[in-house]
Amino acid sequence: MTTYTAPLRDMRFVLHEVFAAEKTLTALPGFEDVTADVMDAVLEECAKLCQNVLHPLNQSGDQEGCTFKDGQVTAPKGFKDAYKQYSEGGWCGLTANPDFGGQGLPEALDYFVAEMVGSANLSFGLYPGLSQGTMLAIAAHATDDLKKVYMPKLVSGEWQGAMNLTEPHCGSDLGLLRTKAAPNGDGTYNVSGTKIFISAGDSDLVDNVVHLVLARLPDAPEGSRGISLFLVPKMFVNADGSLGARNAVSVGSIEHKMGIKGSATCVMNFDGAKGWLVGQPHKGLACMFTMMNKERMFVGAQGISQSELAYQNAVTYAKDRMQGRAADGAKYPNKSADPIIVHADIRNKLLYARSVVEAQRALTLYAHMQVDISHRHPDAATRERADDMAGLLTPIAKAGGSGFGSEITNLCLQVFGGHGYVREWGMEQMVRDVRITEIYEGTNTIQSLDLIGRKLGLGGGRLVKGFMAETDAVVSRLQGRNDLAEFVGPFKDARAKLAACTQWIVEQSQKDPNLRSAVSNDYLRMFALTCMAWMWVLMVESATAKKDSGDSFYDAKLHVGRFFMTKVLPQIASLDGMIRAGSAPAMNLPEALF
Amino acid sequence: MTTYTAPLRDMRFVLHEVFAAEKTLTALPGFEDVTADVMDAVLEECAKLCQNVLHPLNQSGDQEGCTFKDGQVTAPKGFKDAYKQYSEGGWCGLTANPDFGGQGLPEALDYFVAEMVGSANLSFGLYPGLSQGTMLAIAAHATDDLKKVYMPKLVSGEWQGAMNLTEPHCGSDLGLLRTKAAPNGDGTYNVSGTKIFISAGDSDLVDNVVHLVLARLPDAPEGSRGISLFLVPKMFVNADGSLGARNAVSVGSIEHKMGIKGSATCVMNFDGAKGWLVGQPHKGLACMFTMMNKERMFVGAQGISQSELAYQNAVTYAKDRMQGRAADGAKYPNKSADPIIVHADIRNKLLYARSVVEAQRALTLYAHMQVDISHRHPDAATRERADDMAGLLTPIAKAGGSGFGSEITNLCLQVFGGHGYVREWGMEQMVRDVRITEIYEGTNTIQSLDLIGRKLGLGGGRLVKGFMAETDAVVSRLQGRNDLAEFVGPFKDARAKLAACTQWIVEQSQKDPNLRSAVSNDYLRMFALTCMAWMWVLMVESATAKKDSGDSFYDAKLHVGRFFMTKVLPQIASLDGMIRAGSAPAMNLPEALF
Repeated sequence: MTTYTAPLRDMRFVLHEVFAAEKTLTALPGFEDVTADVMDAVLEECAKLCQNVLHPLNQSGDQEGCTFKDGQVTAPKGFKDAYKQYSEGGWCGLTANPDFGGQGLPEALDYFVAEMVGSANLSFGLYPGLSQGTMLAIAAHATDDLKKVYMPKLVSGEWQGAMNLTEPHCGSDLGLLRTKAAPNGDGTYNVSGTKIFISAGDSDLVDNVVHLVLARLPDAPEGSRGISLFLVPKMFVNADGSLGARNAVSVGSIEHKMGIKGSATCVMNFDGAKGWLVGQPHKGLACMFTMMNKERMFVGAQGISQSELAYQNAVTYAKDRMQGRAADGAKYPNKSADPIIVHADIRNKLLYARSVVEAQRALTLYAHMQVDISHRHPDAATRERADDMAGLLTPIAKAGGSGFGSEITNLCLQVFGGHGYVREWGMEQMVRDVRITEIYEGTNTIQSLDLIGRKLGLGGGRLVKGFMAETDAVVSRLQGRNDLAEFVGPFKDARAKLAACTQWIVEQSQKDPNLRSAVSNDYLRMFALTCMAWMWVLMVESATAKKDSGDSFYDAKLHVGRFFMTKVLPQIASLDGMIRAGSAPAMNLPEALF
Repeated sequence: MTTYTAPLRDMRFVLHEVFAAEKTLTALPGFEDVTADVMDAVLEECAKLCQNVLHPLNQSGDQEGCTFKDGQVTAPKGFKDAYKQYSEGGWCGLTANPDFGGQGLPEALDYFVAEMVGSANLSFGLYPGLSQGTMLAIAAHATDDLKKVYMPKLVSGEWQGAMNLTEPHCGSDLGLLRTKAAPNGDGTYNVSGTKIFISAGDSDLVDNVVHLVLARLPDAPEGSRGISLFLVPKMFVNADGSLGARNAVSVGSIEHKMGIKGSATCVMNFDGAKGWLVGQPHKGLACMFTMMNKERMFVGAQGISQSELAYQNAVTYAKDRMQGRAADGAKYPNKSADPIIVHADIRNKLLYARSVVEAQRALTLYAHMQVDISHRHPDAATRERADDMAGLLTPIAKAGGSGFGSEITNLCLQVFGGHGYVREWGMEQMVRDVRITEIYEGTNTIQSLDLIGRKLGLGGGRLVKGFMAETDAVVSRLQGRNDLAEFVGPFKDARAKLAACTQWIVEQSQKDPNLRSAVSNDYLRMFALTCMAWMWVLMVESATAKKDSGDSFYDAKLHVGRFFMTKVLPQIASLDGMIRAGSAPAMNLPEALF
C-alpha cells in the first residue's frame, strides 16, 4: 500500500545547483568522465530499479520475514530475483576499483543510491550494503592474493560480505571480545567463537559469504589493542575460482527482531574455521574502521531514506483523507470535509519531516563529496581538510540521519491516526525498520562520544576549527544580503552557540571526567542542527538565485527553509541549557538507588 | 524475559505523603471507610495479581496474538483464565456503585490499578478497560431498565463493554459518521453500519459484549449534532437474565497491528442489530464524553505504565551488563568491565524516564482525586473547582502520559543496544505497545486542541485561572525556603512562561484562525512540563520533611527532582520559541508544493 518515487529533482538540486558536483568531481583524477549527464543517468536507472523492483517487495518482505531451516537462511520471496537484477546492473560495484570490475564512480553518487535503495527496501539494502564495507577493508588491507580471489566476486555481487564484530557479551566495548584465531603454521588461522547480530551473515541470494571477523591471536595483548582481522569465507575457493568445500562456519539461528525482518540477522558460529589475516596482527580494529566509516555514513543514509519514504506517504494520505474543516474556512465546501493537509498541525509534521530530510540529504552528500576529495585530490592539504570534514561529519550523519529518522517516521505515522498503527498501511513498518539505525554500526551514543571525544580532540581541535572556518566564510559571504537575513541570522546564532558550547565542554571536561558522556548526545544534536541550518543557508542561496525562473520548486525551498529556521532550529535553546547542567544531575544518584 | 515489580512504595508516597489522600477521601460522602490501610491493601492485592498472573502472559500474548476464525475472536493462551481471576477478584467493578455490586472505591485507586495492570500487560488491560467507560455511560445516561439488566453483569465482569465510534471514513471528525439507527416502533432501534478499530469488540473471555454505538436517527441533523448513542448487546438477554439469541452484530475481521497484539481490535458489522437508545436523541456525543474522559485518563495511565515497565527493565540491564569503564576510574577493577550504569549517558536515559514517570504518576493521581472530589464533595463550588482542574488536566494526562511513554520506552530500548531490538528481551514490544496510546481515544493532537481550544475558552478562561491560582499558592508558600530554591525557582519560571504563552495564544488566535492548530502540541507539552515541575516541587517538599529519617528513599527523590529541573524542564525554552513562530511557517507552503 505504500508508494515511493525517488526524489530525483531534489537530488539534482543539491548535486548540481548547491554543490556544483560536476566541477568538483571531474577535477579529481579518475573522475574526469563523471559529468552531470553521467550522474543523472545513474540516478535515473537506480530510481527505476528501486521503484519497480525493490519497493514492491518491501511490505511482503516484512510480513514474510527470513526463515532458518536445516542450517539454511532463506530471504523473503522475490529477494533472490531482485538481487540478481541488482547485481547484474552493476550496483554492487558502483564505487569499486575498475581493476576488479568496479565502475569507479564517486562516493557522492553512492550516497544517493544508498538513500534510494533504503527508501525502497531497507531490509534488501543490507545484503549488498554490508559488501560495501567488506570490499573497502579488503582493498585497503588484504594481500594481493586475497584481493585477486575475493574482490572480483564481491564487486560483481556473486558473493557477499559480512562484518563479524559483536559477541554476546561485547558490543560497544570490543575490547572484551573472545573469538580466537590460532595459527595453522601455513599462513592460515583457525578461527573459533560465536558472533551475534551479523547482518547478511547468510542467505540464499549468493553462493558464498566473505566474513570479516575480529578475533584474538594467541599472543594478543588484552583489550582493544589485541584484536586482529580475519577473512573467513563460507565456502573455500579452488585455484580455478570455483567453489570448493564448506568452511567450518555455520548459522546458529536468526534473530526475531522489531523490524528489518527481510534482512537475516544471524548468530554465526566459527568452529575452527579457516581464515586469513587481513592487515597487521593486533591492528584489526583500525582495519575495521576503514569499513565502519563507510557503513556509518550508509546507516545515516538509511535513516534519511525512511524519513523520505514516510514523508511521501504521509503527504499522499494528508491530501486524500477528508476530516474536519480548515480553521480559516472550508476549502472544499462542496465536499463533506476538507483534506487534513489544511490543518496547521498536519503541516507542521510534514514540514518538520521535509525540512530535516532536505537538509540531511544536502549534508550527507556534502560529507560524501569530502570523502571523494580526501581520496583523490592531488593536493595533500586539501585532502587532509576534506578528510577532517568527513571525519567530523560521519558521526553526525549517522546519528542525525537515524535519530531524526525515528522521530520523523513516528510523526508521519501519526498523520495516519489509527491507520498508521495497522500493518497494511505500511507506516508502522517504517518506524520498526528505522529503529535499528540508531543502534547498529555503533549506537548513537557511541557516535556522539566519537564526536565529542575523538573528533574534538584530534590535532588540538583542528577538525572543529576547520568547520568553524568554513562556516564562517559562508556567514561572511552572505550576511550583507537582506534577502537572506531570515536564514543567515539564525544560522549565525546557532553557530555561535555551538562554538561557545564546544569551548565550554573542552574546558569543563578537563575537570570533570563524566562531562563528555553526560552531554554528548545533546551536543551531537546541537551540532547536527547547526549543520542543517548551514545547509539550508546554502540551499536558499541557490534557490534565491532562481527566484525569477517562475519555477515554484524554488519557492518551496524558501518556505521549507523558513520552517526549519523557525520551528526546528529553536531546539538548540533547550540543548544549550541541558548541556550546561553538566554531569552532576546524572551522577549524583547512587547506583543502589536506581 | 521482562520482569515487573509494582512500585508500591512510590505509589504510597504520592498517595499518603504528598497528597494525604486519606484525609481528602474519607471526608467525601461514601468514602468514609477508605482509610490508608484499605487503600494499601487494595494496592497490594492488585500488585500480586499483576506480577504473578498478568505479566507472565505479556510476551507470550504478543507473540501469539489474537486469532479470528469462523467469526470468532480468541485471545492469546492464558488470557481467559487470567480474566476469570481478575473479574472474580472484583477488579472490574472497583469504582462501580455498590447498588450494582461494585466496590464503590475512589477513582484515585483506580488509577493505580490501571497503571499496574497496564505495566503488567497492556493488551490484557484493554478488555476490562473498555468496560469501565461503558459502565460510566450506562450509569449516567441509560434508563433504569437497561441499568438493571446490564450493570450487574458488567460490574461482575461476566460481560464486557466496547465503544463503537470510529468508521472507515471518520475518526477524529465524528460528524461524518454514517451508521444508522431506525426506530422499530417498540422503543428499540435497528442499527446498521460498520465500525472499525473497536478494542475488545469481541473475545472468548466473556459470553456477552455490551456495545455502545454512535449512530444517526432518521431525522438527525447533519454533523456532530445529529449523533445518538445506542446500547447494542452481542447476545440478547432473556427476562430471567439468561442469554438468549444472537443479535445481528458480527466481527468482520481483526486488525494486524504494530503492537497490543493480545488485544483484539475488531471491525464490527451491525446489520440491523437491535439496540436501545442511551440518553437523549442527538445527544450521543455528550453521553460518549462521559466515558471518553475516563478512558482518556486511562490511556494516560497506560502510557505511564509502559514507561515504568521500561525503566525497571532498563535499570536491571544497566546494572547487569558489563561494558566499558567508568570515565572517572574503574568501579569494578577486578572484573573485565564496569556495569553500564556507571556511564552518565545511561544514567541520563534512566533518570529522564524516572523523573518523568514519577511526576506523571503524581499528576495523574492528583487529577483522579479531583474527579473524586468533583463527584462527591458536598460543596458545589468545591465540586466545580475540582471538575475544572480534572477537565484541564485530562488532555494533559492523556497526551503527556502517552507521548512521554513513546519517548521513554525508546530511550530504555536504547539502553539495551542491539538486544533492545530483539524480541526476546521484550523492550521493543513496549515501544510497539505504547505507540497506540498516542492515537486512540482521540489522537494527541485532538487532546491538544481540546486543551487550547475548549478548555482554555471555558468560562472566560476559568480553568486556567484556577490552575494559576492553585500553583501560585504553591510558589507563595515555598519561595522563602532556601532548601527548596533549586526546585521552586525553575518551577516559578516555567509557570511564568506558560502564563505569558497562554496570554499570547489567546490574543493571537483572535486574529489568526490557524494559530491554535499550529501551536497546540507544543503548548500542551509546555503545560505538561510545567505540571510535572509543580509535582516535583510538592514531592521534594514532602521528601525534605523526612530528610532526617535516614531513609535513602527521600534522598533519591531529591536527586531525581533535581534531574527533572535541570535536564528535562529546559525543553520549555525551545517550545516557547516554536510557539511564538506562529502559524505562518506551517501555512505558507501552498498545498500543491507538498
